[in-house]
Amino acid sequence: MRKRIAIDMDETIVDTLSRHLDWYNREFSQSLCKADLHATKIYDRVLVEHVARVRTYPDDPDFFANIPPYENAISVIKDLNEHYDIYIATAAMEHPASFGAKYTWLVENLPFLSPMNFIFCGSKSILNTDYLIDDSPRHFTHFAGEGILFSAPHNANETGFRRVENWQEVRAMFL
Amino acid sequence: MRKRIAIDMDETIVDTLSRHLDWYNREFSQSLCKADLHATKIYDRVLVEHVARVRTYPDDPDFFANIPPYENAISVIKDLNEHYDIYIATAAMEHPASFGAKYTWLVENLPFLSPMNFIFCGSKSILNTDYLIDDSPRHFTHFAGEGILFSAPHNANETGFRRVENWQEVRAMFL
Repeated sequence: MRKRIAIDMDETIVDTLSRHLDWYNREFSQSLCKADLHATKIYDRVLVEHVARVRTYPDDPDFFANIPPYENAISVIKDLNEHYDIYIATAAMEHPASFGAKYTWLVENLPFLSPMNFIFCGSKSILNTDYLIDDSPRHFTHFAGEGILFSAPHNANETGFRRVENWQEVRAMFL
Repeated sequence: MRKRIAIDMDETIVDTLSRHLDWYNREFSQSLCKADLHATKIYDRVLVEHVARVRTYPDDPDFFANIPPYENAISVIKDLNEHYDIYIATAAMEHPASFGAKYTWLVENLPFLSPMNFIFCGSKSILNTDYLIDDSPRHFTHFAGEGILFSAPHNANETGFRRVENWQEVRAMFL
């Protein structure tokens, strides 16, 4: 039986952080950038009076429209799919208004995967896969397989998990 | 650690079959009923020229609006939730247009569950729970836990799984 890899979507396949920053900077005439977010989340760095608004960005159907994947993400997932069973597991329950836009993005950008392999969930501890590639280490706590931490500014200080900096490193690890 | 039970939604918690029959009979002036569906699916019993149309019913946002749960379903799930970790796992990827309506139904009818415990998926083989209560035995094939078959007309001839006829039997099995 092939091994199974679950892959997170936001900040692992797609660069939602850049979109958050773009929208925030545009709406509030700010100049926040990734370098400002070392070991912290964007919600902890925007002006406090803007937090509630910034948290709604992913509810906008346009937030995921044409959002770019990270470099090599699509080609590496396609290659992984030749040797592993690949599942896309996204914590969509925090933004239920994003269901449709996320589904559309996945179908359009990962046409080689069956939608039967998409999982919109909250807790990822219920996943029965061998690996979970995710930028959020909280999902690894009760996960039965091995968590692989995908580097993001907010997780810069996390230790205790195997870490990949980019999709080339995912390829090197699994292929 | 508490044991985990995943519970299917359609034809396990909510009576989607009755709604299918109601809508079909109304639109096409038919009188199909559950007794006509012994060991078969509705899609195999409606007139062949109506199949494509009937398959679209769950894509209508009104399909899940105010759809009634089976008798005792809510109270039994609420009681199970005191002793088990409960997840609602629904094969929503076949009807992505239903995401929002399903989410709304679950939030309104199961307010004692966190949306973090809702899973919209395709294949349920990725679930890492001890039990899966479901009317579709296909989901049990690669499921790591024990499948509990919730009786429905279409699965009348299925053998090889523990079976429950209704929610009172679920209560008796688990509590």
